Amino acid sequence: MASQSDHKATIIDGKAIAQTIRNEIAEEVRHLSQKYGKVPGLAVVIVGTRKDSQSYVSMKRKACAEVGIKSVDIDLPENVSQDDLIAKVHELNATADVHGILVQLPLPNHINEEKVLSEISIEKDVDGFHPLNIGKLAMKGREPLFLPCTPKGCLELLSRSGISIKGKKAVVVGRSNIVGLPVSLLLLKADATVTVVHSCTPDPESFIREADIIIAAAGQAMMIKGSWIKPGAAVIDVGTNAIDDPSRKSGYRLVGDVDFQEACKVAGWVTPVPGGVGPMTVAMLLKNTLDGAKHAIAQ
Amino acid sequence: MASQSDHKATIIDGKAIAQTIRNEIAEEVRHLSQKYGKVPGLAVVIVGTRKDSQSYVSMKRKACAEVGIKSVDIDLPENVSQDDLIAKVHELNATADVHGILVQLPLPNHINEEKVLSEISIEKDVDGFHPLNIGKLAMKGREPLFLPCTPKGCLELLSRSGISIKGKKAVVVGRSNIVGLPVSLLLLKADATVTVVHSCTPDPESFIREADIIIAAAGQAMMIKGSWIKPGAAVIDVGTNAIDDPSRKSGYRLVGDVDFQEACKVAGWVTPVPGGVGPMTVAMLLKNTLDGAKHAIAQ
Repeated sequence: MASQSDHKATIIDGKAIAQTIRNEIAEEVRHLSQKYGKVPGLAVVIVGTRKDSQSYVSMKRKACAEVGIKSVDIDLPENVSQDDLIAKVHELNATADVHGILVQLPLPNHINEEKVLSEISIEKDVDGFHPLNIGKLAMKGREPLFLPCTPKGCLELLSRSGISIKGKKAVVVGRSNIVGLPVSLLLLKADATVTVVHSCTPDPESFIREADIIIAAAGQAMMIKGSWIKPGAAVIDVGTNAIDDPSRKSGYRLVGDVDFQEACKVAGWVTPVPGGVGPMTVAMLLKNTLDGAKHAIAQ
Repeated sequence: MASQSDHKATIIDGKAIAQTIRNEIAEEVRHLSQKYGKVPGLAVVIVGTRKDSQSYVSMKRKACAEVGIKSVDIDLPENVSQDDLIAKVHELNATADVHGILVQLPLPNHINEEKVLSEISIEKDVDGFHPLNIGKLAMKGREPLFLPCTPKGCLELLSRSGISIKGKKAVVVGRSNIVGLPVSLLLLKADATVTVVHSCTPDPESFIREADIIIAAAGQAMMIKGSWIKPGAAVIDVGTNAIDDPSRKSGYRLVGDVDFQEACKVAGWVTPVPGGVGPMTVAMLLKNTLDGAKHAIAQ
């Protein structure tokens, strides 16, 4: 028998899995186009010139192009009024060849994000953040039109890695509206016994140590040590934290919420950062847009 | 020091707490009536002649009368069509002096419950079951118009017994849309570390044993034994199960999901069945109706 130090977790290659999914989407987009003459369309709205937002948006637009989804680019100035932004959302709601609308966050301070997001038609809410979508996601017997992209990506990584969820102990670290909360609801619907730990949990380690499946979405660089992980557990690391690294030209590098090197020695499966959950989020956005188009065609 | 067998849990008297709340509501109703000349109104809709439904409905109508809420009684025949029932709901949506609409479940088989419930105006959904309400209940930074009555009653029992939630380990047994799921979301919002165990949890005892707060909502007569309860824990028993009892005239008696006698020897607090959560559910329905009326007046 190998000693523990020889143990090597299976690295879940999110980039490769996302590429497989993008190929599947491209195939379906081709099929839709041939059979119905329809091309799925995603409106990507950006306000202002934040570097990080521009980089996310350009990544999403490129990903659309790659699979044949039409990206409708809406670039609004930093000083656009809330009313004008909402008018633009209404216009996109009414545009037949737009099947998904994504408003890149954060918005400038003079704009109420919640108000703007709530104006997106539920049929085009490909981010899946509308409270009606979250409510249906939570409730037994109800199905939301769209699942939020990152949580959906986490479950896809588990299922494509052959990791079953039913009856497992799952611990979700973090309870954000975007990741922690909805992923916990998805795991519960998939029949895991789910515990949510968060900033008010006095001893997160004691819960994490018992988990068969860990979803780390706390936004705390390397908070989860190897010693916190049950041997053989599946570890999905949603964190993306920049830490100082003088050896890099940029002066920083990205790390997850999990100490990856340590996790590799004890976990059964682990996702790297970057290259784990990140690429899946974009792939799920494309999938939701495709589903939106299929839904529109079916009506 | 007393031996364990001498220990006596504090019995949380739901009936008395509910009565206190009903007195508070009656006072507020009087105040509304004096200040604005408005009386809160609750429409209680029943279809058919099921004995249990009739008994629940008559209890709710009586409770309204007691606090000065106007009960609008809608009794429809078993064979009412879905369209006619929905037309009645629309009529109540448009009736200014109706501030809450309750459709007693279950409905006859020829009627789609989900469809009917979704026709109730969100401003009058005093049961709090609309997915939009559940979504807002789940999400940080959002507040639903109404909290579902039983979960709200559970938290009210904790707070009125001086039991703090923040940082505590809470275990919810059961994940129904009506109790388990929303109560777990409420506890999470109140900063507990929450675990939901359910029919697919292989070893519920191991989770329950660690809990500072247990919410039992599985619908399994006396499934939770005294030995499963951490000494000093708060136990809220939502279960109402009829079990055979030849010594009773009726031939049965009601028991909770918790073995009450055993729980009394080890828990810090425990609710009886009946007389614990049950009376709170009705009190919270009255409270939601009052809140609906206040909301309507404020607009």
